[in-house]
Amino acid sequence: MADTIKYVLDETHLPKHWYNLVADLPVPPPPVLHPGTLQPVGPDDLAPLFPMSLIMQEVSTEREIEIPEPVRAIYRQWRPSPLYRARRLEKALDTPAKIYYKYEGVSPAGSHKPNSAVPQAFFNKEAGVKRIVTETGAGQWGSSLALAGSFFGLEIEIFMVRVSYNQKPYRRALMETYGARCTASPSNETVCGRAILAERPDHPGSLGIAISEAVETVVQRDDTKYALGSVLNHVLLHQTVIGQEAMLQLEMAGDYPDVVVGCTGGGSNFAGIAFPFIGSGLRGGPKPRIVAVEPAACPSLTKGRYAYDFGDTAHLTPLTKMHTLGSTFTPPGFHAGGLRYHGMAPLVSHCARLGLLEPTSVPQLACFEAGVLFGRTEGILPAPEANHAVRGAIKEALRCKEEGKSETILFNLCGHGHFDMQAYMDYFAGNLTDVTYDESELAMALAGLPSVGA
Amino acid sequence: MADTIKYVLDETHLPKHWYNLVADLPVPPPPVLHPGTLQPVGPDDLAPLFPMSLIMQEVSTEREIEIPEPVRAIYRQWRPSPLYRARRLEKALDTPAKIYYKYEGVSPAGSHKPNSAVPQAFFNKEAGVKRIVTETGAGQWGSSLALAGSFFGLEIEIFMVRVSYNQKPYRRALMETYGARCTASPSNETVCGRAILAERPDHPGSLGIAISEAVETVVQRDDTKYALGSVLNHVLLHQTVIGQEAMLQLEMAGDYPDVVVGCTGGGSNFAGIAFPFIGSGLRGGPKPRIVAVEPAACPSLTKGRYAYDFGDTAHLTPLTKMHTLGSTFTPPGFHAGGLRYHGMAPLVSHCARLGLLEPTSVPQLACFEAGVLFGRTEGILPAPEANHAVRGAIKEALRCKEEGKSETILFNLCGHGHFDMQAYMDYFAGNLTDVTYDESELAMALAGLPSVGA
Repeated sequence: MADTIKYVLDETHLPKHWYNLVADLPVPPPPVLHPGTLQPVGPDDLAPLFPMSLIMQEVSTEREIEIPEPVRAIYRQWRPSPLYRARRLEKALDTPAKIYYKYEGVSPAGSHKPNSAVPQAFFNKEAGVKRIVTETGAGQWGSSLALAGSFFGLEIEIFMVRVSYNQKPYRRALMETYGARCTASPSNETVCGRAILAERPDHPGSLGIAISEAVETVVQRDDTKYALGSVLNHVLLHQTVIGQEAMLQLEMAGDYPDVVVGCTGGGSNFAGIAFPFIGSGLRGGPKPRIVAVEPAACPSLTKGRYAYDFGDTAHLTPLTKMHTLGSTFTPPGFHAGGLRYHGMAPLVSHCARLGLLEPTSVPQLACFEAGVLFGRTEGILPAPEANHAVRGAIKEALRCKEEGKSETILFNLCGHGHFDMQAYMDYFAGNLTDVTYDESELAMALAGLPSVGA
Repeated sequence: MADTIKYVLDETHLPKHWYNLVADLPVPPPPVLHPGTLQPVGPDDLAPLFPMSLIMQEVSTEREIEIPEPVRAIYRQWRPSPLYRARRLEKALDTPAKIYYKYEGVSPAGSHKPNSAVPQAFFNKEAGVKRIVTETGAGQWGSSLALAGSFFGLEIEIFMVRVSYNQKPYRRALMETYGARCTASPSNETVCGRAILAERPDHPGSLGIAISEAVETVVQRDDTKYALGSVLNHVLLHQTVIGQEAMLQLEMAGDYPDVVVGCTGGGSNFAGIAFPFIGSGLRGGPKPRIVAVEPAACPSLTKGRYAYDFGDTAHLTPLTKMHTLGSTFTPPGFHAGGLRYHGMAPLVSHCARLGLLEPTSVPQLACFEAGVLFGRTEGILPAPEANHAVRGAIKEALRCKEEGKSETILFNLCGHGHFDMQAYMDYFAGNLTDVTYDESELAMALAGLPSVGA
C-alpha cells in the first residue's frame, strides 16, 4: 500500500529569521497613504495601533529579520511542522503527480495563525502593552491570539464576525477557554458598530466591520494596541517560516515544486508558503508556478480592482493599494469565514500585478468534495479555508494526469476542521450551495472606492 | 520565560514490537471463561468475533510481538508522538516537580485510539474480512476505527452510546466523513437493543449495551468481524508504543519517572503508558509509582468488585475476571464518555490485584478545572477523559510542592478536546455538577454478578 510519507526536520532547522520578500522584489510596493493627507504614512502615524518594533517590520526592506529567541522557544512546541507526501491521495486520483502538503494544523490552536500571534504578543508585551484588541472571522486568528495572550499574560479582546460567532460557538468557547473576551460584531460597544446595527439589526458582519470596531476600541485606550491576523506586511513576514521549512523538507525528499498552491483570504498563509519560493526565483533559483486559490463568493484577486482602498468598513485605517471588492462590500455568509475579506494583502496584490502568481477561484461545494476525499485518504480533516488549497492542488494533479506529467505539487494545509464540523454536516445533508455574491452590490462597492490616483 | 520543551524521536526510533506485559508478570492472569461451560475459552471460541492473528495476540505470552511493516508505515504519519515537559504548568503550580506529558492527540483522529484501530483493521483485512462492527462511547474509538477502515478499504459500522451520540454530533460527523455508518445505541437494529428500548425508550445507553449490539450484529454475518477499542489484551498491547517511546524520550531528557499517571476507562491508554514501565520494574529496573485515575462517577477500580463478569449488558461475551461495577450497571451521563464502562481491562485489574498500581478517583468539576489550567498554560485543550490524567498529575505535583520534593511525573495526554467543546461551554456556564452514580443501582448490579468461583 502506498502510504503517506512524513518529512520531519529536527529543531535545529527551525528558521532563525523571517524572510522579507520586499528585499527581492524588482519593483517596490506602492506606499501606504494617510487617508486625510493622501501622503505616505510614516511609522509615527501607526504608533497608536502597533508597537514600534512591529511597525519597523512592516516597513522593513531587509531580507532577513531575526526571530527573537523567546518566540522560537514557543514555536518549538509545534515547529518545524511536518511536510507530508500525500501518496494515498495521489493513488485515489491515479495521478503521476507528486503531491506534498505542509501541515500547519499541528499548532495548539489548529492553524498557521499562531506563527504571527506569538511574535505579535511578544513584541507587544516587550513594549509594555497590557491589552490587545483584534477581530476574527472563522475564529482561527482569534483563538491563536487568545493562546498567545495566555502565554504572555496579556488581556485579549476579540470582535468576531457575527455570522461566524453564531455558526461556530465552539471556536468561541476555545477563545474563552484561553481566557479571552469575545464579542459578536457588529456590536453595540462601538460607534461604528451601533451605526451599522441601527441600519440593519441582523447584519451578518464582515471582517471589514470587525476591524473598524477593534481599531475604534484601541485608539481610546493608552495601554491597548491593535493586532491584525493577516493582510499587513509584518503578518505575512511571520508566516514565512512555513515556506522556509517546506523548502528544507523538500530537499530531504530530493524534490522541488513545479507548482505551489495556497488558499487566499487576507493572504497570510498563502504568503507563508509562497514568498520564500517566489523570492528564491527572483534571486535566480527555479521559478515554480504560484497558484492562489480564493473562494468564488469573495474573489478579490480575480474580480476585484487593484486600487487604493480602506482595510475596514468605517474607514479608520490608512489607504493601501490592493486587490479589493470595495470596503463597503459584504461577502455572503459561506463556510470559510477566514477567507471572507473584501481586500487582499497589499504585498500579495503587488505580486499579482507583477505576474508573480496565478489567481484562481473555486466554488464552495467543490471545496468540500475535495476536503472529504482528502480526509478519507490522508486522514486529516481540513478546515473549510484549507479545502480551497486542497481543491487547487487536486486540480493541478488531475491536469498532470491528463497531460501525463509527473510534476511536483506543494500546497499549504493551513489548518484542521475540528471546529468546522457543522459545515461538513451541512455539506453531507445537502444544505450547502455554491453561494455567490450580489453583482450589483459589488458594482456599488467598487464605484465607491476612494478616488486616489495610482 | 520557562517554556514547554518538546522531545522528538526520529522515526528510526518508532517501536518495532509491541510489549506484552503478560511475559513479565509474577502470576499469570486468570483465564477467560466460556459463559456456558465455565471452562477456559480456547482460540476457536473467539473465532466468530476476531481474526485468528488477533486472537493469538490476545493469548500470547511472548514478551515482544512484531509490529507489521504496513502498520508501522501508517503509525509513522504521526508517530513517534511528542513528549513535552510542561514547564509553563510547573510554573503556574509553583512546584519543584518536573511534569512530562506524552501527547497522543497528534493522530488524525485526535487520540491514542488509532494505535490499535490501525493494526486491528490491518489484521482483519489480511484475514479477508469485509466489514467491522464496533461500539464507541465518546466517539474517540469509533472515529479511529472509521479512519483505519478508510485507509484499508473496510466497511465500518459503529454503535454509539446514545447519550454521547446526542452530546457529540460533530464526533459522529467525523466518523461519517471517514465513510463509516454510525447508529445510536440502544437501537432498533438488534434483539437486545429492542428489548432495552421496550423497557426504557429514553435509555441513555452504555458501552456494555453497545458492545452487545455490535456482537449480536457480527455473529449473524460471515464476512464481518467485531473490534473492541479497549479492555482486551491485544488492544492494550497495541497501545504500548506510547510507553516505549516515552521511555526513550525521557532518556533524551536524562530523566526517569517517579510517578506515571494515566486515566482509566477500559484501560487501554493507561496500559499504553504504564505497562512498559511496570514491566521494566518487574525485570529489575526502577519501579515508579503507577497511578490510575478514574472518574468518581464510574469507579470500577476503586468501588467495583474483582470478580468474573460479562463485558457486555446482554451477556453475549465470555466471562473475564476484572474490576467491575456489574454488567447491568448504567453509569450516569457525565462528560467523559470514553471512561463510562462498567468494567476494567482484566490485565489492568490483575495488576491492581498484584499491587502494581494505585487506583484513585476524581470528580468531574476538578477535572475540568485542571483541563482549563492546562489549556491556558500548555496551549493544548485536553479531552474530558484526558483531564482525569491532568488532574492526577497536578495532584502529584502539588504533593511534591508540599513535601518539597523534585519528583519526575509522567502522564499520558491521550487526546485533545476539539470535539468536546460543549463540555467546556457547560463547565463555564456553571451547568456541570459532580454527578454520582446511584448507590442502590450499584448494589443491585454487584448482587447480580454471575456466581463463578475465584
